[in-house]
Amino acid sequence: MTTMTTSKADENTDSGDTASLLSLPISAGTLAELLEGELVGNAEVPLSTLGSIEDGPVEALTFIRSSSFAKFWANSSCGCALVSEGIEVPGHDPENRALIIVPDADEALVAILEAINPNRVRPASGIHPSAVIDPTAKIDPSAAIGPGCMVGARSSIGANTVLMHNVTIGVNTHVGADTILEPGVVIEDRCVVGDRCHFGANCVIGTDGFGFLPPTDKRGAMKVPQIGTVELGNDIELGACVTIDRAKLGATTIGDRTKIDNQVHVAHNCVVGTDTLICGRTTLGGSVTVGDFAMIGGAVVLNDQAVVGKHAKVAGGAVVLESVPEGETYAGMPAMPARQALLNYGSFRELSTFVRKVEKRLKKLEADSDS
Amino acid sequence: MTTMTTSKADENTDSGDTASLLSLPISAGTLAELLEGELVGNAEVPLSTLGSIEDGPVEALTFIRSSSFAKFWANSSCGCALVSEGIEVPGHDPENRALIIVPDADEALVAILEAINPNRVRPASGIHPSAVIDPTAKIDPSAAIGPGCMVGARSSIGANTVLMHNVTIGVNTHVGADTILEPGVVIEDRCVVGDRCHFGANCVIGTDGFGFLPPTDKRGAMKVPQIGTVELGNDIELGACVTIDRAKLGATTIGDRTKIDNQVHVAHNCVVGTDTLICGRTTLGGSVTVGDFAMIGGAVVLNDQAVVGKHAKVAGGAVVLESVPEGETYAGMPAMPARQALLNYGSFRELSTFVRKVEKRLKKLEADSDS
Amino acid sequence: MTTMTTSKADENTDSGDTASLLSLPISAGTLAELLEGELVGNAEVPLSTLGSIEDGPVEALTFIRSSSFAKFWANSSCGCALVSEGIEVPGHDPENRALIIVPDADEALVAILEAINPNRVRPASGIHPSAVIDPTAKIDPSAAIGPGCMVGARSSIGANTVLMHNVTIGVNTHVGADTILEPGVVIEDRCVVGDRCHFGANCVIGTDGFGFLPPTDKRGAMKVPQIGTVELGNDIELGACVTIDRAKLGATTIGDRTKIDNQVHVAHNCVVGTDTLICGRTTLGGSVTVGDFAMIGGAVVLNDQAVVGKHAKVAGGAVVLESVPEGETYAGMPAMPARQALLNYGSFRELSTFVRKVEKRLKKLEADSDS
Repeated sequence: MTTMTTSKADENTDSGDTASLLSLPISAGTLAELLEGELVGNAEVPLSTLGSIEDGPVEALTFIRSSSFAKFWANSSCGCALVSEGIEVPGHDPENRALIIVPDADEALVAILEAINPNRVRPASGIHPSAVIDPTAKIDPSAAIGPGCMVGARSSIGANTVLMHNVTIGVNTHVGADTILEPGVVIEDRCVVGDRCHFGANCVIGTDGFGFLPPTDKRGAMKVPQIGTVELGNDIELGACVTIDRAKLGATTIGDRTKIDNQVHVAHNCVVGTDTLICGRTTLGGSVTVGDFAMIGGAVVLNDQAVVGKHAKVAGGAVVLESVPEGETYAGMPAMPARQALLNYGSFRELSTFVRKVEKRLKKLEADSDS
Repeated sequence: MTTMTTSKADENTDSGDTASLLSLPISAGTLAELLEGELVGNAEVPLSTLGSIEDGPVEALTFIRSSSFAKFWANSSCGCALVSEGIEVPGHDPENRALIIVPDADEALVAILEAINPNRVRPASGIHPSAVIDPTAKIDPSAAIGPGCMVGARSSIGANTVLMHNVTIGVNTHVGADTILEPGVVIEDRCVVGDRCHFGANCVIGTDGFGFLPPTDKRGAMKVPQIGTVELGNDIELGACVTIDRAKLGATTIGDRTKIDNQVHVAHNCVVGTDTLICGRTTLGGSVTVGDFAMIGGAVVLNDQAVVGKHAKVAGGAVVLESVPEGETYAGMPAMPARQALLNYGSFRELSTFVRKVEKRLKKLEADSDS
Repeated sequence: MTTMTTSKADENTDSGDTASLLSLPISAGTLAELLEGELVGNAEVPLSTLGSIEDGPVEALTFIRSSSFAKFWANSSCGCALVSEGIEVPGHDPENRALIIVPDADEALVAILEAINPNRVRPASGIHPSAVIDPTAKIDPSAAIGPGCMVGARSSIGANTVLMHNVTIGVNTHVGADTILEPGVVIEDRCVVGDRCHFGANCVIGTDGFGFLPPTDKRGAMKVPQIGTVELGNDIELGACVTIDRAKLGATTIGDRTKIDNQVHVAHNCVVGTDTLICGRTTLGGSVTVGDFAMIGGAVVLNDQAVVGKHAKVAGGAVVLESVPEGETYAGMPAMPARQALLNYGSFRELSTFVRKVEKRLKKLEADSDS
């Protein structure tokens, strides 16, 4: 059996971890049946890989999610395309090629990727002998606690949850069911993690917030005790090396179904809503609020106390000083409506030339005016 | 016993780790006595939580650190306020409410937070059987070395110091007394850490500085050996995932009482003074100097060799190319005096409109002038 | 024996880990012989440290890589300098001082640093009893697997490779020969790492790329399975806490001899060439391409799909939205040719003043024109 991936790492993966649901090559007709889509064209077209509509090979499946993709179809080499319902595809040759009409081409592609995904081997349930578990901790018997893990006093680990390797769970911390914590994850004392979460390696949850009274002539910086906690909902995904600080009082919270990319930093007392997407390397300062369904690009800086409204979007690299209204898209430093940012940065690219020319024209006008 | 925190994580914390010094509710009179403050008003006002002067509940203690807070007092619902000495509080009703006058309201609040802080259980002194300690390492008998830790040859760990879990100490590295290293901290060879420090989980101290001769046609990039070290003073706090690189020669140094937030990167040969505060995600390039008592915001970039003077401040998101003079506040990219940055960014927000209007007005003037 | 470093950490390093090849002080003549350079001047000048040409002490060796350094020589206190072939050094006093002419002063300095580098003690070959190795993993007998490490099923570790402490290797992952993985490094399933690599502590390789279909009214964000892998070439150096995500399909790849600094984030499907240098805290968005021999500064943001050409340079703090052409140097936000950025940021520093003055001059001209 071959898989759709071509990586060298897979060359000798003839066993265990790459058992996939799909056998390749697969015919367009069989794929249409599996996806419960409508076949338009030749059911025999053989498919063995995924490809771009512009340069994919003849044996590739591609996808058409909008008319801007559809216009490439007539000249594409790909044998078959997934097409979102309602999109016109001009120049189709049904005798030699195939279209599969589905409600949403992107979602159908996800279903295919899931089918060919080399399934990860879940560690067996139980506690590895090298793990150190406090006698007062409650570990569900179906949970898997890997080598070198530690679970502190009065903490609990829910059903089917997996702690991969060298994971640290502090004191009185509660992790829900069906959650996976990758190697090196640290969750400090008194935190709560929901069900069906996935945290990338070396994430750190529950470090003290960065709260100090500034130093004076008489004493050094005085630490403000951070006696709050961190509460993370269900179905949350965190990338590697994400840090989420505990609150000064109350809790730093992340809502259900929110997905956070690698190396994001969430400071104390942030309140992040449900269903948000936060891309890599973004910084949330203290007490930042992010509304439900917000989408935040990479390397963004949200200043202390900044508020991002529901369904708002923030472009990568933006610095939000105060707020982004509900539903709006902001960009730039300082962040402003994206259209305005586009125009201003466009002008900025020519600023020096503009300054020189204006100076020259003003001088000429002033000279004329004086004469 | 209840605590002032309301987090779900605390609901079943009826034991061990939340034993606090304060019993709640507490009367304003008792609190005044504990803080050695002057009570003005009703000593019987019961307090069970902390709150904001603008929207805290009747049972809340709030604080008044300046007259801008004081003006809210008359209409606040909070039963009691800590007031910094010398601040006038208009509209106080001493029959039903209470003020507690203290030298510094912020410091008094810290004292209260410390009193209600659920005390962390310190691991017992001694070396966990799973820790791997080189026979030539010197571990003070009062130190606590947690599971999965490693201490290399000729290294030393001072009195009462705690290595939580999976901490790595390299060869010939010296950690002082009363220091706490959270899980996953790595301190490489030949580094020095002072007393009473606290390093967040997964910090890495002593990685080689990033020094290479650029690649040429004849050879790849040539590594410049980084034979220096890292020297960290006393009372230093580092957040999670902070990285501090060793020097090429000599030492990368951080002064006493400096506090550094999560995911800060300090490159080789930086010299950071005493009593500085550096917020999350800030980058210190190679050979950067930061003076004593400087305050640096989040996501700041200090270019290689940049110099930040004593008592200087750098606003979040700034990019410092060369230097910030002693005592000054800089902001923006490139960093400039904050007032200038504010004006320039203000103009930038309207740049495109300005360019268009100037163009139009110049054209009209030129047409008039020609005619 | 003393070493050239002056750090406190070295005070009691009279054994093992600091055995160096060079004995100090060393005479200029002996050093010239060791470096196979040409001595010009007094062979007896004693050298015991390295120093800057501007303020190094009399016993210091300094270096002259260009005429801009050479002009300081006459007034420098340093006893000896390494000089790159072909550079004129005015005002040399050969009776009391020494110059050593070498093909490349920088490379000669590297050779000296290597000679005085306290050699790290390599752990003995073999597998520490606390390491957890899957029976199907292949560990070369010359490899050293430290305490608390884990190697998953069907993975392999090459000859002389060292896993320091608490390193995690997933399932079906292949690490080459002579590679060093510092403590806490995590390499997830199905990744490939080449020979002679060095990865800093707490790096994470092979986290899932951040791929989701955005949430809709009917469902939460839908995870796009990341079924690809990560392939890292030979002679790659990664700093601490670097994260490199696996590809959606195919592989995220880094070319031979590329060096990446601390806390860099490389998102899924990036293709980074050979011989590139990427400084600390830089972010590579999804599907970014970086050409061979490119040099990228610190805290740079490369937007999703951005392309940096071969031999191109990107200044620290830049935000690249689309591309940097081959061989060019870009800077600023958004990134533009460095010379243009310099001029535009120069104008930006005075923008507010410029706006005010233009307004005033236009008003005067308009008033004159009307009258």
